[in-house]
Amino acid sequence: MKTETRLTVRYAETDRMGIVHHSNYAVWFEAGRTDFIKQAGISYSELEARGVFLPLYEITARFKSPARYEDEIAVITSLKQLTRVRLLLSYEVVNTTTNTLLATGETLHAFTNTALKPLNVEKALPDVYALLKESTGG
Amino acid sequence: MKTETRLTVRYAETDRMGIVHHSNYAVWFEAGRTDFIKQAGISYSELEARGVFLPLYEITARFKSPARYEDEIAVITSLKQLTRVRLLLSYEVVNTTTNTLLATGETLHAFTNTALKPLNVEKALPDVYALLKESTGG
Amino acid sequence: MKTETRLTVRYAETDRMGIVHHSNYAVWFEAGRTDFIKQAGISYSELEARGVFLPLYEITARFKSPARYEDEIAVITSLKQLTRVRLLLSYEVVNTTTNTLLATGETLHAFTNTALKPLNVEKALPDVYALLKESTGG
Amino acid sequence: MKTETRLTVRYAETDRMGIVHHSNYAVWFEAGRTDFIKQAGISYSELEARGVFLPLYEITARFKSPARYEDEIAVITSLKQLTRVRLLLSYEVVNTTTNTLLATGETLHAFTNTALKPLNVEKALPDVYALLKESTGG
Repeated sequence: MKTETRLTVRYAETDRMGIVHHSNYAVWFEAGRTDFIKQAGISYSELEARGVFLPLYEITARFKSPARYEDEIAVITSLKQLTRVRLLLSYEVVNTTTNTLLATGETLHAFTNTALKPLNVEKALPDVYALLKESTGG
Repeated sequence: MKTETRLTVRYAETDRMGIVHHSNYAVWFEAGRTDFIKQAGISYSELEARGVFLPLYEITARFKSPARYEDEIAVITSLKQLTRVRLLLSYEVVNTTTNTLLATGETLHAFTNTALKPLNVEKALPDVYALLKESTGG
Repeated sequence: MKTETRLTVRYAETDRMGIVHHSNYAVWFEAGRTDFIKQAGISYSELEARGVFLPLYEITARFKSPARYEDEIAVITSLKQLTRVRLLLSYEVVNTTTNTLLATGETLHAFTNTALKPLNVEKALPDVYALLKESTGG
Repeated sequence: MKTETRLTVRYAETDRMGIVHHSNYAVWFEAGRTDFIKQAGISYSELEARGVFLPLYEITARFKSPARYEDEIAVITSLKQLTRVRLLLSYEVVNTTTNTLLATGETLHAFTNTALKPLNVEKALPDVYALLKESTGG
């Protein structure tokens, strides 16, 4: 399963080099993640309402080509790995007009409770675990 | 009472015009507000721990002169008006190297509980109300 | 002429009150402005390519009701006033699911050259001035 | 050579988990980078004025412990590797009150001209190259 999230580059996302500031890619990955989880059959808001947070352990982003104001962007998200306590997602950011790959990245998350303590999601929310498992292709 | 908050312009705060994006002034006003409240004898973290939020009703900012990357900035904050349910703060943003006024602004806040319902701060937290009252010069 | 810009609240846009941080409304107004100008028949990227910037003189925002993560939002933008040197836009931010008005605001802009010096847009770019004039309803 | 950059967590940097949103660490790394380059004897503003940009190729951040509103933070920056065309910096983010390590990270940069084309900095700006070389300890 892959999801595609569309966005238009905002002026505030640019910096004085004239390109999108790299910190925004983390925000775009997150927009992709939101859509991915929703597409898997839950929503991240619901997940939090049921007491589960997904804080980051690690993020990596590699920048291939700059994005500019008003560019049309797609974030393609997939779930690379799922364990009872962790989640690894991967992202491709593409300019949909020129079909250029702009960036790739990964984020590694822990499942935690709202006090940010580690949580075994398979035990705590077996239905959520099953839905996510399915979205990895099994 | 006036407080002065120092900061250095961050690269991420610039936009493709080469100047600080205006949305950051709201964040700088807030940094000024944090220092003002701390100086008044409480801290905003403490206030929230005691169940009081200060969401915004209104913000105005007027821009006089642009700020640029690595500029040294001061935010001068004062409390213009305090009632049992509202708080009006005012701000001046200055380039401390050139002594130029960059922007002025005001923020109007409600006192609310953590469910964002209006709260009479004089009743709920009389000590906080007294400290804030004092910082207005009475 | 009014334009409507759709967006979904991003996680990074929330703060520890659990609601969208107010500084993001300035960014949303700008997304609305981008669409409005494009709809008027130019694009803001083009405008900049032709040597015209639109820095802010003043921004006001009034907050009525909070927005939360994953909320579906519309920014409704219109052009209130146009002179040879200035532009006043107004905005309404609406939760499209609940049809609640979340915020209203205005931004006042100068027309400047790329050195941020004031510019008479009617003289410098008469075609742009005409298009904008038309979008105000004349 | 190591530099230490102090900052206080801003309210706008928190998210609805109640902790600093991870995208801000990229901005903090950059604040550290700004100080490091200044300490090396140039400034990044100057570098850009002389026609050199330092866009990112890659960023990695690992999160150990959350930061919260009003926390006092230090970013410790060092230059790990310098070639004629690339720069690798590393960062540690520390809570200075509790002395807890919050995050570590690296950023890999290209030297480019203002059109974002790769540039041999040793040739283009030998004085800058020498200063940076010195800051690596040789």
